[in-house]
Amino acid sequence: MSELKHVYISEISGYEGQDVILKGWLYGKRSSGKLHFLQVRDGTGIIQAVIFKGDVPEEVFEMADKISQESSIEVYGIVKEDKRSALGFEIGVKDIKVIGESHDYPITPKEHGVAFLMENRHLWLRSPRQLAIMKIRNEIVNSVRNYFNNNGFLLVDAPIFTPAACEGTTNLFEVKYFDENAYLTQSGQLYMEAAAMAFGKVYCFGPTFRAEKSKTRRHLTEFWMVEPEMAYFDLEMDMNLAEDFVEYVVQQVVKNRRQELEILERDISKLENIKKPFPRISYDEAIKILKESGKEIEWGEDFGGDEETVISEKFDRPVMIHRYPAECKAFYMKQDPESAKHALCVDMIAPEGFGEIIGGGQREDDFDVLLGKIKEHNLPEEAFDWYLDLRRYGSVPHAGFGLGIERTVGWICGLHHVRETIPFPRLMDRIRP
Amino acid sequence: MSELKHVYISEISGYEGQDVILKGWLYGKRSSGKLHFLQVRDGTGIIQAVIFKGDVPEEVFEMADKISQESSIEVYGIVKEDKRSALGFEIGVKDIKVIGESHDYPITPKEHGVAFLMENRHLWLRSPRQLAIMKIRNEIVNSVRNYFNNNGFLLVDAPIFTPAACEGTTNLFEVKYFDENAYLTQSGQLYMEAAAMAFGKVYCFGPTFRAEKSKTRRHLTEFWMVEPEMAYFDLEMDMNLAEDFVEYVVQQVVKNRRQELEILERDISKLENIKKPFPRISYDEAIKILKESGKEIEWGEDFGGDEETVISEKFDRPVMIHRYPAECKAFYMKQDPESAKHALCVDMIAPEGFGEIIGGGQREDDFDVLLGKIKEHNLPEEAFDWYLDLRRYGSVPHAGFGLGIERTVGWICGLHHVRETIPFPRLMDRIRP
Repeated sequence: MSELKHVYISEISGYEGQDVILKGWLYGKRSSGKLHFLQVRDGTGIIQAVIFKGDVPEEVFEMADKISQESSIEVYGIVKEDKRSALGFEIGVKDIKVIGESHDYPITPKEHGVAFLMENRHLWLRSPRQLAIMKIRNEIVNSVRNYFNNNGFLLVDAPIFTPAACEGTTNLFEVKYFDENAYLTQSGQLYMEAAAMAFGKVYCFGPTFRAEKSKTRRHLTEFWMVEPEMAYFDLEMDMNLAEDFVEYVVQQVVKNRRQELEILERDISKLENIKKPFPRISYDEAIKILKESGKEIEWGEDFGGDEETVISEKFDRPVMIHRYPAECKAFYMKQDPESAKHALCVDMIAPEGFGEIIGGGQREDDFDVLLGKIKEHNLPEEAFDWYLDLRRYGSVPHAGFGLGIERTVGWICGLHHVRETIPFPRLMDRIRP
Repeated sequence: MSELKHVYISEISGYEGQDVILKGWLYGKRSSGKLHFLQVRDGTGIIQAVIFKGDVPEEVFEMADKISQESSIEVYGIVKEDKRSALGFEIGVKDIKVIGESHDYPITPKEHGVAFLMENRHLWLRSPRQLAIMKIRNEIVNSVRNYFNNNGFLLVDAPIFTPAACEGTTNLFEVKYFDENAYLTQSGQLYMEAAAMAFGKVYCFGPTFRAEKSKTRRHLTEFWMVEPEMAYFDLEMDMNLAEDFVEYVVQQVVKNRRQELEILERDISKLENIKKPFPRISYDEAIKILKESGKEIEWGEDFGGDEETVISEKFDRPVMIHRYPAECKAFYMKQDPESAKHALCVDMIAPEGFGEIIGGGQREDDFDVLLGKIKEHNLPEEAFDWYLDLRRYGSVPHAGFGLGIERTVGWICGLHHVRETIPFPRLMDRIRP
C-alpha cells in the first residue's frame, strides 16, 4: 500500500483509472446495504470514497462502518469518473486504514453557536466553508503581491515595534521593551514614506494593531494591512492606482476562486461588476447625499459605518470619497491647495455595506507646513525629526494608501463579521486558541 | 515638460532615442568645463545625466552646477546608448528642474560609523548598497511565496498575540491586552499544526519576536520567519522539502539578482553551488566532528554559533543536523522510535559560518506521550488543551520547519551583521527611527 502514490484530492483529475492513496480525514459517511459512502477530506478538497462489499475483505467492510467523524484515514483505491459529484471523480476503495481515531468530535453537522465555534477555532477550520474562505484569503494575498510585483514596487517590511505614535497613543498596544516602552504599529505609512524616497514605489504588508474598545463586526485588534507608497504621486494618481489595484484583486478572485465563492453562496455577478472607473465624490458631495437621505450630519464630522453604508448603497461598485475636512484627518495629510480646510485624502468604501476598505491620500511634503501641523497636534517634535528629514532632503510630492485585508476578505466572501476572515481572530475579548 | 512620459531608470532600455522625464534625486555629480555629469537615482537604479553647455539655456547650465546631493529633480532629455556604463544608457539633458532642495545631507560619500548610519536608517536606505540588499530581500520573499504556491501550500497567517508560551516566557515580549496579558508570538508552529490538520500543507510568514538579551551580530528582537507545516510528513520528507526549498530560493536569487550580488561583491560561485542533496549528519556524528576538531563538548549539549561554524566549514553547502538529544529540544518534538533519548528534529546550518537558518522536525503525534511531555516540562496543561485536541481527533504524523528570513538574507548577501538585512532593524538597544 505504501508503494502507491499519495495523491491530493485537488489533483485527482490527473489520475483517472489509476490506483492511488489518499491521506486525509473522514468528514462524513452513509451506508446502504452493500455500500459505504465515505466523504474524505484532505485539506485540498472532499471526495466520495465508495466501498462495495464485494470488493474488499469482510473485515475491512465492517471496520469502515465504524470509522467516526474526523478519524484520520489512508484510503487505497482506483480513481473513477463520477459526473454526479461536484468534483467529477470518486474513489473505488480497495483498502482502508485508520491512522488516528477520533471520538466525540465536538463539531457535528448540526448548528453550533458562534461562541462555541470560536472556542474551537482550531477544529472549526476543518469545515468546507472555512476552507473556502481561507482559499479566497490566500488568493487575495497572492493577488495583492502579484499586483505590486507586476507594477515595479519593492516590498519594504515596516517595523512592528515603534517608539512613537502616528496619531496619539489611545488605541495603541504598549509593550515593555527592555528598559523602555514600545508600541505595536498601527500603520507602516511613515516608514513607507522614507522608503519611497529611497526606492520610488514601495509597499509593506504585515500585521497591524489597534487597541480599540470596539466589539463591532468590523473590528479586530490584530489585522493585516497592505500599504503602498509612491514618490512623485499626487492624489489623482493615488486614486487611479487604488481603483486599478482593487479591480485586479477582485477579478483575480472571480477568475481563480469561483468554486469557493459558490460554496459561500456569494452573488458573483456583484463581484464581476467591480470594474474601473469607480465613482469619485468629494466629501462635500457626500454630505449632500447624506442630507438628502435624511441623515443628520454637519460639515466637518467624520463618517461612521452608518454613513458609509448609506453612501455605498448609491453605487454598484466601490466609491472613493476624497477631500475630507482637514480637521477629521491625520496631521500628515497634505492640505488642498485650493482650500486649506480640505485635505488631499481619499477613503474607498466597498459596496453592499461592507464599509471602508482603503484610507489614503497625498502626504504633506512642505517642511514648514508639516512642522506646523505637528505642533498644532501637540505631537512630540523630536520623535518626528527623522520624518521631517524626508522634507529636509529632497522632498517630493508623494501619496499612498492602506488596504485592510480582513475587510476585503469579508467583502469579497460576503461575510457579515470579520471574525471568519482570518485564521485565528483576535478580538477585544478573545485571544484564544 | 509635463506632457512627456515619466520613465523609471529600470525601464530606460525601452526608450532609446526618445525624449523622457526622469523623476528622482541627485546622487552625485562632477563637472569638466562645458559638461556636467549628474548621477541621478530614482529608486530603481542610477543613471548618468549629461548636460552639455551648448544644449541647454545658460541659466540651466549654471543652476545644474549648484544642485546639491539628494535634491529631488526632474530631468528632461533624450535616452542615449552608453556602452561604458553598467546600465548601458545615459541621458542627454535638455532641461532640469529642482523639486525639493537638500542642504548638508548627512550621509556623504565618505565613511560613516555604524551607529551614525543606524541613527539615520531612513536616509541610509537611499544608498546603492542598501537598494541591492532590499532587492535581494524582496527576491527571497517572493521566491519563498512562489515555492509554497507552486507546491500546493495554503497560506495561513498565524496570530501575533498569543496567550501562552511555546517554550517558557523568558524570551517573550509581554503586552497589556485590555484586562489581561498577552505575549508576542515567537513561532506560529502550534497554530500551523492545527492548520495542517485542516488544510494538509500550510505555511505562515510573518514577524516573530524574541526578547533575548543578546547583542550579537545574529540577533534581532523582531524578525520574519516562514514556517511550513505538513500533515502526513515524517522527518525524512521534512528534510527533503527543506533542501528543495532552500535550493530553489538561492537559485532564484542567483538567476534574478546577479547584478545586486555583484554590487555587494558576493562570491556568486559559492551560491551557484547550493544544489541538493545537502549533507545530512546526525547530532551524534556532529559531536564526533566537533571533538575531532578539538572542541570541548559533551553529548547532550546544544550547539552555539561556534560549534555551528566548525561544522559548516566542513561542507560547501548547507548541512542538516538531525536527531538532537530530546533534552535540548522543545516538548513537541517527536521522540525517535529507535532511541527515546533522541528527537526527530533537524537544524539546517548555512555554509561559510552564517549559522542556523532552519529549525524543525517531526511533531509528537501521540496523545499520551505529548501530555507526558507537557507535564514533564511543567507547562500549564489547560493552555495546551486545544493543542492536545489535534491528537484527540484524527492525529497524523506531521512535520514542519521555520526559516529565518534575515539570516537567509544575510547569508545570501554575504553580510556579517543582520542589521542590514531588514529595512528598520530592531535590536535590544534600538527601536528608532
